Amino acid sequence: MRPQVLIIGCGCGFGGLEAARALRAADVDITVVDKTNHHLFQPLLYQVATAGLSAPSIAAPIRHLFRHQRNVTTLLGEVVALDPRGKTATLKDGAQLRWDHLIVAAGATHSYFGRDEWAAFAPGLKTLDDAFEIRRRVLLAFEAAEREDDPARRAALLRFVVVGGGPTGVELAGTFAEIARHTLPGEFRRIDPRQAQVLLVEGSPRVLAAMPERLSERAREQLTALGVQVEVGARVTSIDDEGLDITTTAGQERLASRCIVWAAGVAASPLGRTLADATGGSVDRAGRVPVEADLSLPGHPDIQVIGDLAAAMSHAPGQPPKAVPGVSPGAKQMGRHAAANLMRRLRGQATLPFRYRDYGNLATIGRNSAVVDLGTPAGPLRFSGYPAWLFWLFAHVYFLIGYRNRFVVLLDWAWAYWTYDRGARVVTQKR
Amino acid sequence: MRPQVLIIGCGCGFGGLEAARALRAADVDITVVDKTNHHLFQPLLYQVATAGLSAPSIAAPIRHLFRHQRNVTTLLGEVVALDPRGKTATLKDGAQLRWDHLIVAAGATHSYFGRDEWAAFAPGLKTLDDAFEIRRRVLLAFEAAEREDDPARRAALLRFVVVGGGPTGVELAGTFAEIARHTLPGEFRRIDPRQAQVLLVEGSPRVLAAMPERLSERAREQLTALGVQVEVGARVTSIDDEGLDITTTAGQERLASRCIVWAAGVAASPLGRTLADATGGSVDRAGRVPVEADLSLPGHPDIQVIGDLAAAMSHAPGQPPKAVPGVSPGAKQMGRHAAANLMRRLRGQATLPFRYRDYGNLATIGRNSAVVDLGTPAGPLRFSGYPAWLFWLFAHVYFLIGYRNRFVVLLDWAWAYWTYDRGARVVTQKR
Repeated sequence: MRPQVLIIGCGCGFGGLEAARALRAADVDITVVDKTNHHLFQPLLYQVATAGLSAPSIAAPIRHLFRHQRNVTTLLGEVVALDPRGKTATLKDGAQLRWDHLIVAAGATHSYFGRDEWAAFAPGLKTLDDAFEIRRRVLLAFEAAEREDDPARRAALLRFVVVGGGPTGVELAGTFAEIARHTLPGEFRRIDPRQAQVLLVEGSPRVLAAMPERLSERAREQLTALGVQVEVGARVTSIDDEGLDITTTAGQERLASRCIVWAAGVAASPLGRTLADATGGSVDRAGRVPVEADLSLPGHPDIQVIGDLAAAMSHAPGQPPKAVPGVSPGAKQMGRHAAANLMRRLRGQATLPFRYRDYGNLATIGRNSAVVDLGTPAGPLRFSGYPAWLFWLFAHVYFLIGYRNRFVVLLDWAWAYWTYDRGARVVTQKR
Repeated sequence: MRPQVLIIGCGCGFGGLEAARALRAADVDITVVDKTNHHLFQPLLYQVATAGLSAPSIAAPIRHLFRHQRNVTTLLGEVVALDPRGKTATLKDGAQLRWDHLIVAAGATHSYFGRDEWAAFAPGLKTLDDAFEIRRRVLLAFEAAEREDDPARRAALLRFVVVGGGPTGVELAGTFAEIARHTLPGEFRRIDPRQAQVLLVEGSPRVLAAMPERLSERAREQLTALGVQVEVGARVTSIDDEGLDITTTAGQERLASRCIVWAAGVAASPLGRTLADATGGSVDRAGRVPVEADLSLPGHPDIQVIGDLAAAMSHAPGQPPKAVPGVSPGAKQMGRHAAANLMRRLRGQATLPFRYRDYGNLATIGRNSAVVDLGTPAGPLRFSGYPAWLFWLFAHVYFLIGYRNRFVVLLDWAWAYWTYDRGARVVTQKR
């Protein structure tokens, strides 16, 4: 019997997908298990939340992606327990999956920093269902405003607050402003959507904190130009169904809002703790599992943890180890590295330490606006504005999975660009 | 103040939309109220249920459709009460809308012939949420079968039953067979999707009973060629979460199935009864409101009922009145007629009786298969097979609303045609 490789997680991120693909020529049986049936292209999820793209444009059935890779079996299921001694994973319905090698790539979810009660009032953006919920809230806020006679309640309906100034928060805030300023005017008779207020609330002193300071400043300027009110150094102290309280240097402020989106914190999947408990290990503050230099679990060379679930370090020769950032390229590189180490182990070779290669960082803000920070052999290349936006656009379309999706997304964008229309303004799922 | 026209219902059908459009030059204020934010192109809804099209391809925001028609105000809301004396409609949240002229086009929903408990086991297809639910059940049945070891349970998971052999049932059954035979093989490792059984259960002696007998026979042949097992003259006597019982001339039969779809009966919207109760009238067995020759409510010339909600008659000169069939062209023609009569009333002219013009009937069965029955001045033109399928395709794309949608749908179809792939195989909404 060939070695059994079990890969947990392939839907929400790139790590599991890349690991399985990198094993395509390996003489192993791979089982990929995920709780969703589709692999999601996370970098464009905000476009579904803002009605620019339809869900199928950025999601592909996992088993479709592996249809030609005969050593992969895809299963839909949620892993709820792990037994490292018996080398079995238990699914929610009790079914068991055995492994000789396990790769855990279960990804991350939102973190409300211990205030989980905020989740009901400020949904985050990790899954397609999250995106539908945000789209529903944004579109229904405008609908309710059109029917509201009371000016204060109308203003609260037309105030959109995004908490968190990272890439997702910046993208959401910029696109909300674009919708209010460009897409909706002319369609309402009692309100002027341009009077909507979009706020971006960030706790640190600047947006896109992972970027060089100059690009953060550019991003802030571009957001302001789009009509977003950027509040940096502002801490959220409470959220309820009528609004939120923030604390700034100027003091405490109450903001009435009926549409708040949470883009402030991520935490590793709860499977990290399940794994730590099962192996007598521990997780870090973000719920991530510390791994060895070769991405294996300490004391468990048959288990590798990758992607957002891993607290991994990059080991460049002659340099001190450096934390791997929680970004897509990091997850992809870890996936390929885990597969390579697995094949080395099968051949009886020693595993190699992981080294993260940082090719740069980019974020979009809205129509024609983005910031790009690339590492090149000649030093960093940094630019912003329209060229950055074009670069961002083609980079994202290039990495989209499936030729059909690439074409459909480009088409949707071209249409949206020329008409300002957003094609996916459909509200379903009455709750 | 200009006359206030209230139109109830614009999302699920064509009647309300056509009526409002036909009033674009009228000196009136129109309020369109619907409980969904989008107008749905019903004839292609089965494509969303079978993962061929994404929801935004066949749905457009109602207010977007009316953005250039300045005399229309679009409101999202559900009408729960009507007061014909005070001429006001009450929305679910208590808000009131006054009318001088009322057009009710609230459409139809499923009917389980008094067995509403079947709804949980056999969803119908009227809304986008219905389509998502069917898509979810079909895709999850294959997923569960891949994980099922017991042969009997596996067979039940791979048996798909469509109840009702009208156009929707025929389209669904044909497409399910196409998915099992062409889309999914190669993607599973433990099951062969081609072993899935698709059953179409029809109570009457033939499918597509509204069509000429010869075309029904063609449709049945084409379904069989696609791999659908057609059971005519079969009555459903019970449905539960494990399958259904049917009675045929051969006796009683139990069919284990985990995916049953209901396409057997429609009933008018409950608003029909609300309207009848409020006006001292009554509804027919299908819940429809009988209307005068000019589509107005008896004794209420200010109220018109159109589309699937109306039990309307066609009045051709020199011929006895004939019932108007519940099809899209009927709803469209009633919408335009109601608008014309409304304008005649505003000018003090007498209203005119409605006459339905039957341009024909068409239904698709699956890839390359359809039946067409056209009325031409030279007599009926009937054809089937590939030419009928092409005719059906272009007719439907032509009537789709929005240039972008037409293009996207054609593109999706071209892709699906050449690759057998279905682009929208995404399961969301865990319940």
